[in-house]
Amino acid sequence: MLEKRSVSGSHSASCGFWWRRAGIKLIKLSLRSLILAVCVNERRPFPPPPCSQSSGGGSTLLGYIGIDTIIEQMRKKTMKTGFDFNIMVVGHSGLGKSTLVNTLFKSQVSRKSAGWARDEKIPKTVDIKSVSHVIEEGGVKMKLTIVDTPGFGDQINNDNCILLPWPHAPWFHWEPISKYINEQYEKFLKEEVNITRKKRIPDTRVHCCLYFISPTGHSLRQLDVEFMKRLSHSVNIIPVIAKSDTMTVEEKQEFKQRVRKELEMNGIEFYPQKEFDDDMEDKSDNDKIREAMPFAVVGSDKEYQVNGKRVLGRKTAWGIVEEPTNHRSLCALARLLPRSHLQDLKEVTHNIHYETYRARRLNENGGLHPICDTQDSNL
Amino acid sequence: MLEKRSVSGSHSASCGFWWRRAGIKLIKLSLRSLILAVCVNERRPFPPPPCSQSSGGGSTLLGYIGIDTIIEQMRKKTMKTGFDFNIMVVGHSGLGKSTLVNTLFKSQVSRKSAGWARDEKIPKTVDIKSVSHVIEEGGVKMKLTIVDTPGFGDQINNDNCILLPWPHAPWFHWEPISKYINEQYEKFLKEEVNITRKKRIPDTRVHCCLYFISPTGHSLRQLDVEFMKRLSHSVNIIPVIAKSDTMTVEEKQEFKQRVRKELEMNGIEFYPQKEFDDDMEDKSDNDKIREAMPFAVVGSDKEYQVNGKRVLGRKTAWGIVEEPTNHRSLCALARLLPRSHLQDLKEVTHNIHYETYRARRLNENGGLHPICDTQDSNL
Repeated sequence: MLEKRSVSGSHSASCGFWWRRAGIKLIKLSLRSLILAVCVNERRPFPPPPCSQSSGGGSTLLGYIGIDTIIEQMRKKTMKTGFDFNIMVVGHSGLGKSTLVNTLFKSQVSRKSAGWARDEKIPKTVDIKSVSHVIEEGGVKMKLTIVDTPGFGDQINNDNCILLPWPHAPWFHWEPISKYINEQYEKFLKEEVNITRKKRIPDTRVHCCLYFISPTGHSLRQLDVEFMKRLSHSVNIIPVIAKSDTMTVEEKQEFKQRVRKELEMNGIEFYPQKEFDDDMEDKSDNDKIREAMPFAVVGSDKEYQVNGKRVLGRKTAWGIVEEPTNHRSLCALARLLPRSHLQDLKEVTHNIHYETYRARRLNENGGLHPICDTQDSNL
Repeated sequence: MLEKRSVSGSHSASCGFWWRRAGIKLIKLSLRSLILAVCVNERRPFPPPPCSQSSGGGSTLLGYIGIDTIIEQMRKKTMKTGFDFNIMVVGHSGLGKSTLVNTLFKSQVSRKSAGWARDEKIPKTVDIKSVSHVIEEGGVKMKLTIVDTPGFGDQINNDNCILLPWPHAPWFHWEPISKYINEQYEKFLKEEVNITRKKRIPDTRVHCCLYFISPTGHSLRQLDVEFMKRLSHSVNIIPVIAKSDTMTVEEKQEFKQRVRKELEMNGIEFYPQKEFDDDMEDKSDNDKIREAMPFAVVGSDKEYQVNGKRVLGRKTAWGIVEEPTNHRSLCALARLLPRSHLQDLKEVTHNIHYETYRARRLNENGGLHPICDTQDSNL
């Protein structure tokens, strides 16, 4: 069983383990196993290194212990409990928000698909509507909530309308969204400070906000800049260029570069944020993602038969355009969103955005006090 | 990639998913995938079921999404951060506590191995001493802390000495231990209510207490009963019969049965506690463990050459006794401790014992108030 164990030099070299931050050094003793005595004794000074069967002040593991089975144990727990993931989509009507979400999750998960009439009137103010689904894949269950924001950006006709009255002023557009995001943090915080807590706090916090940029080919609108500037510190924003099939390859590249420049000029930090890269490996992976952003996407949630196979695509006068596998940007987004950064999006939301909200909230008005609420606890 | 997805009937049938507790039903739509619309909309009543490409009110997934990659994402995170695990060993001197811990973790991890002289005097009162090691296996790093309690049970000569003065009264034996366990909860609680919190709170809470019962062949001592009765509600106790090679097979079976009966009569709940079984699958697995408890163990941390192979064993006048693979009880404990219940021990400690302490603490004296401590936060 010894074969299962290995000490990877790259792992210990590449990242900031908590014991390294605490000033504890890991000493490599053999290629197969390592162990280091670290004294945290309550009463005595640091003792000499442990007695050892191998020379060099450390000891070698004599057989397989099973520490790495923690992964399997965590897998079993996750399979049993499932997990929550909440995505918000923001952008004016007609940009294909619902279609893109359906494309990413290969099913009719969007609000519009969930029975909301496609011909509903565009609201005069920004509305927040959400719909949840439970999706299972490989035995893992995810409660996916799509938060839609109909009415966002729809009543603004002028990019420089910041001084115009309701409903033209941009803040009428981001304020209800910001309020919703903070309300979810507040809900979580209230559950967290309860004296009798739920074993598992329901997580309605927005883990990711897909911001849809119009494929104008020109530049970002003032509302785009203002929205992302204000909300990038309270939610993970992933900017996407919507309906990018309306642009030629050159136009798309040029527009992407312009948007990236404008985001940088305005100090807008989108996800994955540079400052939260854990280590060099993370940085290298995320740099590639950041370079490809904003993703220029085209959604397609209709199913067609092509050469006898079911495919997702868009049927145009020129034929069926197969989307998901061939569209690089969409693939990159699909990789990022469900396949590589789901857990990280949840962790950044919890460790950074929620913690920032919590600290601000506890600092004001003497903070929140624990509440004795025994009604629906499932401890 | 579709092959990766499956809906296991046994999973959804066997356990209490949070959405089931919330009254949400999962509807199976196909053998390969399932999806169910659940409305959590803020403003409108429950909408009709989602538009669907398959009949029956649900929709089929059109391709692989990647929800199950969350397991791989969690694995990567765990490999980077590592985890803490803290074991306390309690029992009077000479019962082989250090040896057993060394045997379980296949290395010299105990306090005595870490440079503490074997000939140190038995203290007159119970002392708490701990030593930590970082062990790596399969790329996963664990900071293992062994908390020893020298002096426990050593000054008691009479089982009915409850009224005798110090240091004979049993409460002088469990009180320092109970105090230590609560101090760790208090440390964690203080970190948790801080306004600026650490990204990862150092976990010094005792996840498991191995309680060593003397292989007398008679019955439990009064101190054993009192200790386990008092501490079983604040820590996960795993009772073990020490040095069980001093008993014949029949004596061992008889003693195990007697101990089990006494534990039951005294209402002592040891780990894994029946009330915390998650589902029928859990119950069935844990019932087998409970039936085999208390484990009758023999530790062996010396290495010998047997038929050209390195083995752990005990060298007696009758030859070398190979231990770890042949000893059923030890194997069961080794399976339970590092290989199957590590994560569960951590979760029961956090969700049950720590939560109980926290609720009590917040109820008394108006509770703890958030402290602004920015000194060593690594947010």
